[in-house]
Amino acid sequence: MTNDDRTGAFDHLFTDAVREGLGEDGYGSWRAIDAPDAVSLSFGFPYPESFPNDELVAAAEAVFEEEGDRALQYGGGDYSDRLAELVAERERKRGIDCDGDDVVLTNGSTHAIDVVCHTFLEHGDEVFVEAPTFMGALKLFANYGVEITGFENDADGLDVDAVAAELESRAAEGRPLPKLLYTIPTFQNPSGTTLSRDRRERLLDLAAEYDFLVLEDDAYGELRYFGDDVPTLAELDETGRVVRVNTLSKTVAPGVRTGWILADDEILDTVGRMCAGGTNTFTQSVLGRYFAEGTYERNLAEFRENYAERCTHMLDCLDEHMPESAEWTDPDGGFFVWVELPEDIDAEELLPAAADEGVTYLPGEMFFPDDRGANCVRLSFSHVSFEEMDRAVAALARATRSAMAD
Amino acid sequence: MTNDDRTGAFDHLFTDAVREGLGEDGYGSWRAIDAPDAVSLSFGFPYPESFPNDELVAAAEAVFEEEGDRALQYGGGDYSDRLAELVAERERKRGIDCDGDDVVLTNGSTHAIDVVCHTFLEHGDEVFVEAPTFMGALKLFANYGVEITGFENDADGLDVDAVAAELESRAAEGRPLPKLLYTIPTFQNPSGTTLSRDRRERLLDLAAEYDFLVLEDDAYGELRYFGDDVPTLAELDETGRVVRVNTLSKTVAPGVRTGWILADDEILDTVGRMCAGGTNTFTQSVLGRYFAEGTYERNLAEFRENYAERCTHMLDCLDEHMPESAEWTDPDGGFFVWVELPEDIDAEELLPAAADEGVTYLPGEMFFPDDRGANCVRLSFSHVSFEEMDRAVAALARATRSAMAD
Repeated sequence: MTNDDRTGAFDHLFTDAVREGLGEDGYGSWRAIDAPDAVSLSFGFPYPESFPNDELVAAAEAVFEEEGDRALQYGGGDYSDRLAELVAERERKRGIDCDGDDVVLTNGSTHAIDVVCHTFLEHGDEVFVEAPTFMGALKLFANYGVEITGFENDADGLDVDAVAAELESRAAEGRPLPKLLYTIPTFQNPSGTTLSRDRRERLLDLAAEYDFLVLEDDAYGELRYFGDDVPTLAELDETGRVVRVNTLSKTVAPGVRTGWILADDEILDTVGRMCAGGTNTFTQSVLGRYFAEGTYERNLAEFRENYAERCTHMLDCLDEHMPESAEWTDPDGGFFVWVELPEDIDAEELLPAAADEGVTYLPGEMFFPDDRGANCVRLSFSHVSFEEMDRAVAALARATRSAMAD
Repeated sequence: MTNDDRTGAFDHLFTDAVREGLGEDGYGSWRAIDAPDAVSLSFGFPYPESFPNDELVAAAEAVFEEEGDRALQYGGGDYSDRLAELVAERERKRGIDCDGDDVVLTNGSTHAIDVVCHTFLEHGDEVFVEAPTFMGALKLFANYGVEITGFENDADGLDVDAVAAELESRAAEGRPLPKLLYTIPTFQNPSGTTLSRDRRERLLDLAAEYDFLVLEDDAYGELRYFGDDVPTLAELDETGRVVRVNTLSKTVAPGVRTGWILADDEILDTVGRMCAGGTNTFTQSVLGRYFAEGTYERNLAEFRENYAERCTHMLDCLDEHMPESAEWTDPDGGFFVWVELPEDIDAEELLPAAADEGVTYLPGEMFFPDDRGANCVRLSFSHVSFEEMDRAVAALARATRSAMAD
């Protein structure tokens, strides 16, 4: 039903946080932008050829052959048991000292973020985020009725000085401090930027000083195409304040819907208790086998090369087509470029014209907890062909120029 | 880490509900009872031969052949899209007037219950349950910091008169009324009993009169072996107060971890918004294909015959071995028989001796929100062989007689 049809018969039974959000769009509502004839640069889809269809079927066959019925029973078999250890191995390659016991598997990273929220956030609590940030996380936080404050993000990521100034002023004035700061420090969604090492260290100092947790979302962390690695927040953390969430959605496939939480013992123990219900041992067993065969590592190397070319091509297209007054980020990895159109252009209002020209995108506003970002758009370079990218960026440029002339 | 190692460094950051539960065992902790040489009647495992390993591999192969990469992309393809419609078809066979739009798919039914809790329950809210009831639900409710009141369950299920009396007295005294009553009305876990039609109607009247929701968990509803169908609460509901959760864990396999919520539009719309994050389209596609082929229906017919024999054999074993002073339920379906040992026997204390004799079970106390049920045990007849059942029940009888003699 549409929200307009609501009679509100049961509204009084909802939680306060739910009641406050009634009538607002929920998680996934951004799928509504639909223009079949236009090239969609809207979504962070992995490119279709990256999906390991055959490998997953082969892994399923092998699992059942080796484990019989155990893969489908409560608790799962050896392959699903090993998956936590196998993802911990990935995390060790990212520099984090951990093993399988430091990991709680989840149904994807949004589920992981949800469990962390459920553990820590009460109605009215304060949460800090980068602005722009992942719109799914913003929707999720809203379900908990928390107050969200967004901080600028520049070429070096989150403006940690601005965070420091806000914390200082809140502390001085006795205003509430945040319980949690949510960040995608590496190849951020939607901006593509990466938080510098200096800022990471400063952020962790602030977390310790002002007693908040840092929720590190590293969904794109393994997808670096250019430049040198920057240590993850979890690696730099010395106080146990970093709770890290991750996913296989970008490096295996979204459909396997498997993620994890990595945290200090003290926190993981409780987070695990809040992560109620069993996990999908069918999928986990298939993934366990897929990893154990070395398929993940091999495929990842191929994905990186492929995405590097896509990223470069997108930046070339922007250089070629866009008006000088537009600016965009220069990502070293991930799926997205963030484009700032001239200030007086509203990207949401521009969308129908852009779709007519042949491109759709997500307007910047939906990535902000407030009303900023109206002149921005997120472009995904992850899944369309080079030819489509050319057409799409040329269409965006035409629509922009036409709006500039109005 | 064990709870004893806690330093409590981050306890002040947890929600109030989480802090109150610190040190208590979490979801899944009942798995700890381990005696490898004893026959385990502890868990509601489907019997291993029921798992459709080959059918799932074949379905995965067919899905990828027919849909290419769509099954693994965000949003999934046609088979995962159709799954909501296919489970609604199952629900229509249970007498419920519904279609795919009335269903939100979840990662199993515990996840479904969790989402319902997240939508409705605040710290301090009141929840009514059958006592005994599913221990997983009790753990889950505890994560929300709610007050749980348990009502007796007899051969006709929940004692609805007792519920009515409590509601009346609370209303008269101005004490808080429940927001939600959680029930497994059909082949209840752990008791195996089924709520009579009269009581169902009376319960729904009470829900309307005292303004609460009824959370109907029908995990075992399709597994009837004897007797006539009783209408589901969702079918009898005329006010939209029934929120129904269900799962494929018992009728396909636990490892596919797929369930759903079925509710009135007014509620489903909001519940869906709280069910953040995508779903496992890999599994859903495989299940969609599995259903579409008619495999579910064929397998279910076979499962019912098989479980009927297991159930009968379990009751025969109890008749043959147990002392006269023990009593047990007479289930028409589901996985469990609930046994009351003589009143002075503590089933948890008896467990080591019973394990030595050759059987393990879940002690009754863990199915109660209070300290009742000490002399009870839940026995699962769903997955052990006839020979194991004989040995196990004989062992329980020996341990019981020996404790009676003490």
